Amino acid sequence: MYNEHINMKGRIGMAYIFGVDLGGTAMKFACFYADGTLIDKWQVPTCAHGDKIIMQISQSLLGYLSQKNIPRTQVIGVGIGVPGPVLPDGTVNRCVNLGWDVVNIESALSALCGFPVKAANDAVLAALGESRKRGCDELVLMTLGTGIGGGIVINAKPLVGAGGAAGEFGHIVLEQGGYPCSCGNFGCAEQYCSAPAIVRIAKEHLQNTPIHSILHEANDFDCKAVFDAARNCDALAQAVVAQVCDKLAKLIATICNTIDPTLFVIGGGVSHAGQILLDGIAHNLTKYLFHACRTQLALALTGNDAGIYGCYHLVAQKIGV
Amino acid sequence: MYNEHINMKGRIGMAYIFGVDLGGTAMKFACFYADGTLIDKWQVPTCAHGDKIIMQISQSLLGYLSQKNIPRTQVIGVGIGVPGPVLPDGTVNRCVNLGWDVVNIESALSALCGFPVKAANDAVLAALGESRKRGCDELVLMTLGTGIGGGIVINAKPLVGAGGAAGEFGHIVLEQGGYPCSCGNFGCAEQYCSAPAIVRIAKEHLQNTPIHSILHEANDFDCKAVFDAARNCDALAQAVVAQVCDKLAKLIATICNTIDPTLFVIGGGVSHAGQILLDGIAHNLTKYLFHACRTQLALALTGNDAGIYGCYHLVAQKIGV
Repeated sequence: MYNEHINMKGRIGMAYIFGVDLGGTAMKFACFYADGTLIDKWQVPTCAHGDKIIMQISQSLLGYLSQKNIPRTQVIGVGIGVPGPVLPDGTVNRCVNLGWDVVNIESALSALCGFPVKAANDAVLAALGESRKRGCDELVLMTLGTGIGGGIVINAKPLVGAGGAAGEFGHIVLEQGGYPCSCGNFGCAEQYCSAPAIVRIAKEHLQNTPIHSILHEANDFDCKAVFDAARNCDALAQAVVAQVCDKLAKLIATICNTIDPTLFVIGGGVSHAGQILLDGIAHNLTKYLFHACRTQLALALTGNDAGIYGCYHLVAQKIGV
Repeated sequence: MYNEHINMKGRIGMAYIFGVDLGGTAMKFACFYADGTLIDKWQVPTCAHGDKIIMQISQSLLGYLSQKNIPRTQVIGVGIGVPGPVLPDGTVNRCVNLGWDVVNIESALSALCGFPVKAANDAVLAALGESRKRGCDELVLMTLGTGIGGGIVINAKPLVGAGGAAGEFGHIVLEQGGYPCSCGNFGCAEQYCSAPAIVRIAKEHLQNTPIHSILHEANDFDCKAVFDAARNCDALAQAVVAQVCDKLAKLIATICNTIDPTLFVIGGGVSHAGQILLDGIAHNLTKYLFHACRTQLALALTGNDAGIYGCYHLVAQKIGV
C-alpha cells in the first residue's frame, strides 16, 4: 500500500503534514515531515462517491498513523487538493467528478479525522508545488489534460479567488459562439486545447482535407499520436499542432497580459509532447503578447507529485510549522 | 498653485508622504501626513519631455517644502505613478507619452530630490487607491479612456508583474487579425472599447447602416454623445453600445476567469456613462464567465484622485510609516 518509503530517520518526536490529491479515479496520499521532507506516498482508488469519499480519506489517513505508530498529536494538519472550485473558507462549489454539490471539505474532513484541514483546487496546489520546487514566487501553471486547469501563485502564495475560480483558464472564451463546452458556455479554451479537443480537431482535419496522414491508418488515436505524427513530419498532424499551438499562444498571452508572471509553466498529459509544443506556442506568442511582458515559458518539473507538494506547502503556510 | 488646502493642523513635527501622478499633459501632486490624511493637492502642466520631466517633479516637490517650511528630514518618501510599464525595480520600460525610453525613475528622481522614491504604473496605483478606499483586498480596476489601462490588487498589494505589464488589459487580443493597435498587434481590446474606439465604431455604423440617428446631425461627436444618444433611445447608438458592452463583457470575464477578484471596478472617462454601461456589460457577462466566479462589478469611486491615494499607499507599504 505505501509504495514509496523514502525516509524513516528521526520519525519519533517529529511533526507530520499530510497531503491528499483527490482525483475522480484515484486519491494520492503523502506524508511529510514538518520541514517538507517526503516520507511516504500511497494511492487508493476513489471507489465511492459523495460523502463516502471523505470517510475514505479519513480512514486511509488514520490507518496510516496506526500502522506507523504515529501519535495523532504529532500531526500538524492535512492539505487537500480538490478537482473543482474551492472557496477561501474551504467550501467546494460543485465537483461533478466526485458527486459533490456544495460541501465544506475542510470542516467535514476535520470532523472525521480530528486534524486541521486546508483545501484548495488541485491545479492551484500543483502551481504552489511547482512554485516552491523552483523557488519562483510569481508563477502560473496551466495543466493540459482531459480538461484545462490552472493555478496562480503570487508572492509565493496560491491565488484562490472570491469564488475559488482563479486559474480557470480552460473556460476563458477563445472563440465567440464556438464549440459548446460542458460548463454551458461556447468557445471555451478547453474545447480547442485539451487532449480530447486535439483528437477531435485532428479527426475534423482527417475528414475535411485530402492530405494523406499516418493518422488515417489508425482506427482510433490519442493526443500523443497526433504530436508523434507531427514530429515525424506528417503534414496533417503538423497543421493540427500549429492550430492548437496558435490557440494556446492566444490563451497564454491573454493570461500574461493580465498578470505578467515570471514563469508560465505548462503541465498535464499534453505537456509530455515537450519541445514541439513549446516551440509551437513560442512561434505564435508575440502576435498576442504585450511588448513589456517578460514571462518565460517552461514545462512542468514536478509532474504528478506537484499536487501533493502543494498540499504540504498550503498547510505549512496557513497552519504554520 | 496649491489649489486645495485641506488640513494644516499639527504639521510641525509630522512626517510626510508625497504622491505624484504623472500624465502626458499634467502632473498631479499631493502631500499626505504619514497616516494618510491628504493635506494639499496641486497640479502643474507637463511642459517638458524626457529627462526634464524628472527635474520638473523634483523642483515642484522641493519648492513646496520650502514654501511650507517643511524640513526635508520629515519626508518619508515619494510615490509616483507613470503612464507606462514600470518594472519591480523602478525601471520604466518605454513611455512614449513622456518621451522616455528606458529610465529608472526611482533612482533618477531620488538622486535629484534626495528622498526615497517608489514608482509603479499609474493604473496599478489607481487600483491600489481604489482598493484601500473600499477596504477591498482583491480588486481589479480597468480604466476606459483614450486607452485602456488596468491594475490588479491582490492581498491588498499592487501586482506589478515581471516586466511591469500586469494589468495591460487594453492589449488583450479580442479579435484575432482584427483592427491594428498602436502596440504593433492586431485586435487588441483597446481598439474596441476605448473612448476613441467607441467613436470610430459609431462612425462605421453611421456609414454602413440606413438607420437614422441623432448622431448623423452632429459634424463630429465624442464618446459621451454616443452613450447620451443610446440613453435617449437612439437605435443606432444603442446598437453601438450593445456591441461595445459585449466586447467589454468578454474582456472582463476573461480577466475574472483568470483571477476571480472580489470586485471588478470600471473607471476612466468612459465609465461616466454610468448605469447604461454597467447594465450592458452585466447583460452579456454570463455567456463568458465561469459559473463559480463571484466577482462583483462596480464603477470607480475615487475618480481622478485614485492615483495619488495609490502613491501614498505604495510608499506606506514599501517604505513604511
